[in-house]
Amino acid sequence: MMKFVDLNSDVGESFGRYRIGYDEEVLKHATSANIGCGFHAGDPLIMEKTVEIAIKNGVQVGAHPGYPDLLGFGRRKLEASPKEVYSYVLYQLGALSAFAKAKKVKVQHLKAHGAMYNTAARDYDLAKAIAQAVSDFDNEMILLALANSEMVNAARDLGIKVAREVFADRAYDDDGFLVPRNKPGAMIEDEDLAIKRAIKMVKEGRVESMDGKEIGVKADSICVHGDNPKAVQFAKRIREGLETNGVKVAPMREFIK
Amino acid sequence: MMKFVDLNSDVGESFGRYRIGYDEEVLKHATSANIGCGFHAGDPLIMEKTVEIAIKNGVQVGAHPGYPDLLGFGRRKLEASPKEVYSYVLYQLGALSAFAKAKKVKVQHLKAHGAMYNTAARDYDLAKAIAQAVSDFDNEMILLALANSEMVNAARDLGIKVAREVFADRAYDDDGFLVPRNKPGAMIEDEDLAIKRAIKMVKEGRVESMDGKEIGVKADSICVHGDNPKAVQFAKRIREGLETNGVKVAPMREFIK
Amino acid sequence: MMKFVDLNSDVGESFGRYRIGYDEEVLKHATSANIGCGFHAGDPLIMEKTVEIAIKNGVQVGAHPGYPDLLGFGRRKLEASPKEVYSYVLYQLGALSAFAKAKKVKVQHLKAHGAMYNTAARDYDLAKAIAQAVSDFDNEMILLALANSEMVNAARDLGIKVAREVFADRAYDDDGFLVPRNKPGAMIEDEDLAIKRAIKMVKEGRVESMDGKEIGVKADSICVHGDNPKAVQFAKRIREGLETNGVKVAPMREFIK
Amino acid sequence: MMKFVDLNSDVGESFGRYRIGYDEEVLKHATSANIGCGFHAGDPLIMEKTVEIAIKNGVQVGAHPGYPDLLGFGRRKLEASPKEVYSYVLYQLGALSAFAKAKKVKVQHLKAHGAMYNTAARDYDLAKAIAQAVSDFDNEMILLALANSEMVNAARDLGIKVAREVFADRAYDDDGFLVPRNKPGAMIEDEDLAIKRAIKMVKEGRVESMDGKEIGVKADSICVHGDNPKAVQFAKRIREGLETNGVKVAPMREFIK
Repeated sequence: MMKFVDLNSDVGESFGRYRIGYDEEVLKHATSANIGCGFHAGDPLIMEKTVEIAIKNGVQVGAHPGYPDLLGFGRRKLEASPKEVYSYVLYQLGALSAFAKAKKVKVQHLKAHGAMYNTAARDYDLAKAIAQAVSDFDNEMILLALANSEMVNAARDLGIKVAREVFADRAYDDDGFLVPRNKPGAMIEDEDLAIKRAIKMVKEGRVESMDGKEIGVKADSICVHGDNPKAVQFAKRIREGLETNGVKVAPMREFIK
Repeated sequence: MMKFVDLNSDVGESFGRYRIGYDEEVLKHATSANIGCGFHAGDPLIMEKTVEIAIKNGVQVGAHPGYPDLLGFGRRKLEASPKEVYSYVLYQLGALSAFAKAKKVKVQHLKAHGAMYNTAARDYDLAKAIAQAVSDFDNEMILLALANSEMVNAARDLGIKVAREVFADRAYDDDGFLVPRNKPGAMIEDEDLAIKRAIKMVKEGRVESMDGKEIGVKADSICVHGDNPKAVQFAKRIREGLETNGVKVAPMREFIK
Repeated sequence: MMKFVDLNSDVGESFGRYRIGYDEEVLKHATSANIGCGFHAGDPLIMEKTVEIAIKNGVQVGAHPGYPDLLGFGRRKLEASPKEVYSYVLYQLGALSAFAKAKKVKVQHLKAHGAMYNTAARDYDLAKAIAQAVSDFDNEMILLALANSEMVNAARDLGIKVAREVFADRAYDDDGFLVPRNKPGAMIEDEDLAIKRAIKMVKEGRVESMDGKEIGVKADSICVHGDNPKAVQFAKRIREGLETNGVKVAPMREFIK
Repeated sequence: MMKFVDLNSDVGESFGRYRIGYDEEVLKHATSANIGCGFHAGDPLIMEKTVEIAIKNGVQVGAHPGYPDLLGFGRRKLEASPKEVYSYVLYQLGALSAFAKAKKVKVQHLKAHGAMYNTAARDYDLAKAIAQAVSDFDNEMILLALANSEMVNAARDLGIKVAREVFADRAYDDDGFLVPRNKPGAMIEDEDLAIKRAIKMVKEGRVESMDGKEIGVKADSICVHGDNPKAVQFAKRIREGLETNGVKVAPMREFIK
């Protein structure tokens, strides 16, 4: 059976006169774009421009909502209630969808950003608030969620589509969770190894944990970065590595049902 | 022939812990709600709540986008380009539409707020940017525009629906424009006179200018306020006055084609 | 020996067109004003105006910095580092001091707001960041800190002046900490009892805990509120109660050395 | 008689995770730093860091307040009243001064940013509001103002110190005002010519207008940029050119009395 995987990338995170990320470059290799929606990053002009870049590159458009914390780039945990998060996600999703609609495309998916993503990975109520916003807006839309996380559970409970995200360059613990970045060994520095691990997660749904166990980590989408030219280069390499190994790289909407 | 008119009111302009406006009260009398979208006022929780209040009262939902100036409540002119305004309006319209969608209603109309409204009344390029955002988002949507303004012209040029807004409590000049508030006589203080003028604008499409001329001012929608209990009381009175005089008060979607 | 106490109140928390609090009223009874500095609430015009009101009423001016979260009114915990909090506090303190300076008065004290206050009460590193900002700005300034909290410890360790704040209307636990608001019995509803407790904290430095123990809670300043007319009325009553019982109500600078 | 000139540069305009400008590089050549204060750009952490960089390079610290428009980088005209601008400037000046105070230095000067600077150059009331804020905060502080502008007049009327700013790379009209950037010939592209013009403005207080007339433009400070490596290189060149021609390059406080 053919194996599919999506490559997603966070883009559209510039703001006003400030520029961040090699959006044009990384979207040559990714298949799905997570576009900042103006809370943690991004602004209306940037969103419009980024939707255009995605379309030009045949990349699917997704919303990338975050906490209302531009100063902290959405990376700081904020004690917002599920009710607040629901409304923040719905607001941002709607805002992005307007730019998509104006360009005659649909928003394929939604991926929460930074601290919201990390918190919802472990907090079912928050995860459910995010999934509910997606469901209420468009129940054909896909929630892009950390594999093995509460976001996957919440999406399933609400009956919406979910794509499980994995990280090629991150170590996993025995529970199938990401090892926090500040722990030694959390980052997989060896690019060849990272690609090998990604292929295994896609084809077998398994990866070796930091403690040497084989654990289940299903991969529907792999996160690639456009922060710097090296990251973009790695996005290209991982795509080639997947394709060479018989994996079909395609937008998640083509295989997530 | 039956004469129709809509009563619109700016609502959903609270923010965070701050409360402004008697939304629940004024929406008992208005037929269309212009809901703040988070730039000049309003926030995601408030938007959600306000859409609920509108639905509960059988009031149609509309977007009320403004300049990104919460500190100035969107009342200060900001030198934003038409391209910027287009993207600001589209962003806010999308954000509001998400709350409407989640509650299974459509956004009926859009009315620009404050300085954006006033500037676009005289500036065709800005007016066109606003109308274009409406058109690109949903070409069935109605632009609620100051009667005799460039916004009406822009909507017509783009082929979208337009409802002409009038003010019962404001004087008009010979060109059919509002007399600036800071001029003596700009405000019609006599409520009975204001109601009489409103009825005439609706039924005859005419009003007496400050200089005593009969001028053309077509009224599809009259602005009513919910800032204070007295304003709410006037909204009730004007509605009764219109109905007593054979005017059908209804949401603009029922008669704007 | 004469017993002194200060009455402090959070004021200047309006924003733009939004109004909150009966500042003019409560500052007739308080002796120290904690003025919002534009992050969780307040804006430059409001700050200027509030400094004026304080001066007119013979009330001492203090800074009331919070997290950069206007949407949440600074009441939501934000995972900001001590280094970030240090710079946020210094920024806000400087901003307020400019308005004080322009009116020829000094900033007497600083009291952190909301979630920043609550977090720093238990987190020594955060408390120290706040105290350090005060110390670096003006080492004669007083830190207004929750009695028995880490803020008191941090101020002492840095050698700056500290005033211990108590709450007349809140229950204390056996450790001398406030019982969280959501617990039953957390609020002292009986006003006479609240005043009696306040007098005891001022005169004896003791109060009865929720579990009936006598615990040490030293009171240099009592928090009074201006949220509503009833709160203002209570501020008046508590002041009268204190004075009737031989306590001298005065700005903290007159007795904190 | 020895001729002096200051070289000023806009720095500290990064925000959160966003970086802009070669601050460390340009401050090797400039003598005065105009530091963003958090409204149009800059944030508390960036301000603290920038004050440190200035001190390390022996550069004098100045405030660079702007309109509250991060999205537009303070470059868009905002219809704020003189009263509003006064309070915005005072707020930002105070905020910056706190970081200076914490590092035991004084704020030498203030230069308004972008649209606020351009508007105040022609609008006396706005100029006076800015000058008044400086005067009320510290009447020893210098207002850095466009030569020949209303800001110079306002500073003189209020009796505060003023340094006249000139631009080496900009053409002047016959009134001694800058030719708008969008006009042909507005920019002096030839670096050698730009340096020659700067020297003449410093030594003779005169420059050739675009129409070939000799006009009076007194130069107390020349604006240099750190936007890109080429601009930094030019800052170095102009400094060398001035020094080679017998001009003493020094912070404005050393010669503005």
